[in-house]
Amino acid sequence: VDALLADLAGITGGEHLLTDQDMTGGYTTDWTRRYRGPARCVVRPASTEEVAGVIEACARHKAPVVPQGGNTGLVGGGVPYRARQDNPPVVLSARRLTRLDPVDTLSGQVTAGAGVTIAELRAHASRAGFEYGVDLASHQAATVGGTIATNAGGVLKMRYGGTRAQVLGVEAVLADGSVISHLGGIEADNTGYDLGQLMVGSEGTLGVVTAARLRLWPAEPPLLTLLAGVGGIEEAVTLQAAIRAAVPGIRAVEYFEAPGLALVRRHAGLPAPLPEDYPGYLLAEVAGSEGNAEDYAERLSVTPPLQKASVAMDAAGRAALWAYRERHTEAISAEGIPHKLDVAMPLSQLAQFRAELDEVIAKTGGRAIVFGHIGAGNVHVNVLGPAPQDDAVDNAVLRLAAAHGGSISAEHGIGHAKAALLHLSRTPAEIAAMRTVKTALDPDGILNPGVLLAPQESK
Amino acid sequence: VDALLADLAGITGGEHLLTDQDMTGGYTTDWTRRYRGPARCVVRPASTEEVAGVIEACARHKAPVVPQGGNTGLVGGGVPYRARQDNPPVVLSARRLTRLDPVDTLSGQVTAGAGVTIAELRAHASRAGFEYGVDLASHQAATVGGTIATNAGGVLKMRYGGTRAQVLGVEAVLADGSVISHLGGIEADNTGYDLGQLMVGSEGTLGVVTAARLRLWPAEPPLLTLLAGVGGIEEAVTLQAAIRAAVPGIRAVEYFEAPGLALVRRHAGLPAPLPEDYPGYLLAEVAGSEGNAEDYAERLSVTPPLQKASVAMDAAGRAALWAYRERHTEAISAEGIPHKLDVAMPLSQLAQFRAELDEVIAKTGGRAIVFGHIGAGNVHVNVLGPAPQDDAVDNAVLRLAAAHGGSISAEHGIGHAKAALLHLSRTPAEIAAMRTVKTALDPDGILNPGVLLAPQESK
Repeated sequence: VDALLADLAGITGGEHLLTDQDMTGGYTTDWTRRYRGPARCVVRPASTEEVAGVIEACARHKAPVVPQGGNTGLVGGGVPYRARQDNPPVVLSARRLTRLDPVDTLSGQVTAGAGVTIAELRAHASRAGFEYGVDLASHQAATVGGTIATNAGGVLKMRYGGTRAQVLGVEAVLADGSVISHLGGIEADNTGYDLGQLMVGSEGTLGVVTAARLRLWPAEPPLLTLLAGVGGIEEAVTLQAAIRAAVPGIRAVEYFEAPGLALVRRHAGLPAPLPEDYPGYLLAEVAGSEGNAEDYAERLSVTPPLQKASVAMDAAGRAALWAYRERHTEAISAEGIPHKLDVAMPLSQLAQFRAELDEVIAKTGGRAIVFGHIGAGNVHVNVLGPAPQDDAVDNAVLRLAAAHGGSISAEHGIGHAKAALLHLSRTPAEIAAMRTVKTALDPDGILNPGVLLAPQESK
Repeated sequence: VDALLADLAGITGGEHLLTDQDMTGGYTTDWTRRYRGPARCVVRPASTEEVAGVIEACARHKAPVVPQGGNTGLVGGGVPYRARQDNPPVVLSARRLTRLDPVDTLSGQVTAGAGVTIAELRAHASRAGFEYGVDLASHQAATVGGTIATNAGGVLKMRYGGTRAQVLGVEAVLADGSVISHLGGIEADNTGYDLGQLMVGSEGTLGVVTAARLRLWPAEPPLLTLLAGVGGIEEAVTLQAAIRAAVPGIRAVEYFEAPGLALVRRHAGLPAPLPEDYPGYLLAEVAGSEGNAEDYAERLSVTPPLQKASVAMDAAGRAALWAYRERHTEAISAEGIPHKLDVAMPLSQLAQFRAELDEVIAKTGGRAIVFGHIGAGNVHVNVLGPAPQDDAVDNAVLRLAAAHGGSISAEHGIGHAKAALLHLSRTPAEIAAMRTVKTALDPDGILNPGVLLAPQESK
């Protein structure tokens, strides 16, 4: 008899403790299918108290815990991976933490449970006349807790600042089972260390987020969406700057390239977006009231590439243009198991990085599909070809980004995938300080071991 | 011979090591004159390396260190206070860390040393067509490092989010003398714990900030500034919401009351701002281009209290209106040593808090001058009358704020002043987690002991 399982069943009820591999498969394999590993069990607590009980029990049994939201992560941070076979982790699924309070319209805030999906949160905010400032392609599955743990970016990051900027406070369970809660939503609040901000982006290694107090924004319907062809990423950088200078209220600026477009069109059966073909494409969305439409269209049309752009001003037209960008992920996955490399760098470095990228990829025998949130200097390099467990291409691309002053993780996080490469973006002193914080808050290392901070070699 | 002083003189040169009380007085007494204490010395390093050397030497000698910026703090967080007489602290003045890099106009960012003043930073940004998103009355003296350590708010907080929202990364010296540096300015950067955000608001207890990478905003000149009379704080809350709904681009909304206005007029020799007297006043500033002026004036004049408002559209007129608000602090200090209580709460609670405040103050024999950043729910309660060392009124006002769901520190921080009352705003589990982080990063407790976290009683 497994004493831990008995304890966990006592907390959540046996029906929310899964041990059969037929039932746990969806929790132990990640979305890319690149990361997977055995789990001791999957436990699905329904309240903060149950999460605290689960963590307390795991701490008592020294059982590692992998917190999981919608399991849409791309770096193996939410699934068991390379776990020691003698002590496989407990997967703690937070999807049943579905608390969703009414929108506080005076403050423009809402409290949401970790298991609420981004799509649910956005719809909830919308009904009250507000918008949640994060959106991403996986919004039907990605959760509040998971996006906080990974500090998810998404297409609205340049407008609203990404997940970190939305978080006014969190409720979380620490490694000892204690609950820290700061959901009061006071905008001006300087009362000691911001533990909530420390949790943002910590990838489940410091605590399990159970709820958050989130900022909302007055609803800002898109006015016009446009798709323009460009000669490549350098022209895209210039064009996005021109668009930002020409009109206010830019919600998003996205970039993709001809090979990705070809995959998307084939996979989704879509027509060509423009009469001519181009090496690269820029998708931009601008907010404003209908009174601005004519003025904005005129201001934008001064820029030559936009004169040939496809422009949408209604929901159906917008969705049709966005599909070319948003369906990249599924189209790529339909081709095989991609290496998904998520880097960012100063805008001034993007063109040179892109120029050197093809050679680096070619050496690995792969082919690259490049797209991303160009307004934030963030490109997703998807590589098809190399075997899932072959890290050579990951190493090469991340080192190239670092050589251009870039970050090896723009918005996906470090996970298992990049833990051993963290030194490319952070100094030894920074990593040492991170380990100090981790060890202090989780001395037995039960929270998501191996994620973000690589296991230290003992000699 | 004091071996520590010899070590410090070797690092900064003897001319930047002050021990004579005639020289150290300006560093050992705070701006309010309420907090003061003996210092072993004042040391003024001029580079990050010198700061690291100073901290390493202090760590070796187990000497407590009080980091100090412009010494404009109001809670005793930047001066020695109630220090043990047998081991008075070293005051580390960061004012000589005056690095100020050129503005990166492509990214809208700048790197600034901890000793750069907010006024210098704002002027530097302005020359490049940008604005730094924080401004406060003490901007001539308050520094980048000090405002990061305290997460300063100020009048632009409702527009740009306060200091935390400007910080892309920091360089800081930790308690062991190691330097963590993250000044790359990558907007999309999810590579582990955000140590910079952990430093923001930590009041010098986790590290000494030496420089920061800061976000800037496209310059947004004020279009119109207005001062309106209101019946009190409840009407001010309603009016600020109406202004925010009527026009975009609200930069600031400030509130003050008749007793404070009377003090300011007497102290500064100013005329009455409006033909009639009112119990309260609302100052609002709106950005926009000149083309918006007529439209905005029309939209705002629909609200009755604004029909009688005084409106300024040029720099001199704006300065004249702002003087009524900004000169509160000096006018109050000219009357005596005030208790400066800085609280915030949900906007829905402000009126009830204000209604109960006078009775609470009256019981202490004091008189209250109330003003603040009402758009952020932040009011400054200044109390004249009670002796500086008498904490009764502080206790009473902070407890009243907490009873209304408020924060006992909106933007000033906790310092020495409120360390013993931190439990009013944070739970035991939160305070325990803060202590865990503090102890891990500063095991000997040399960084700003007694600030933020009260000394634990040993039994």
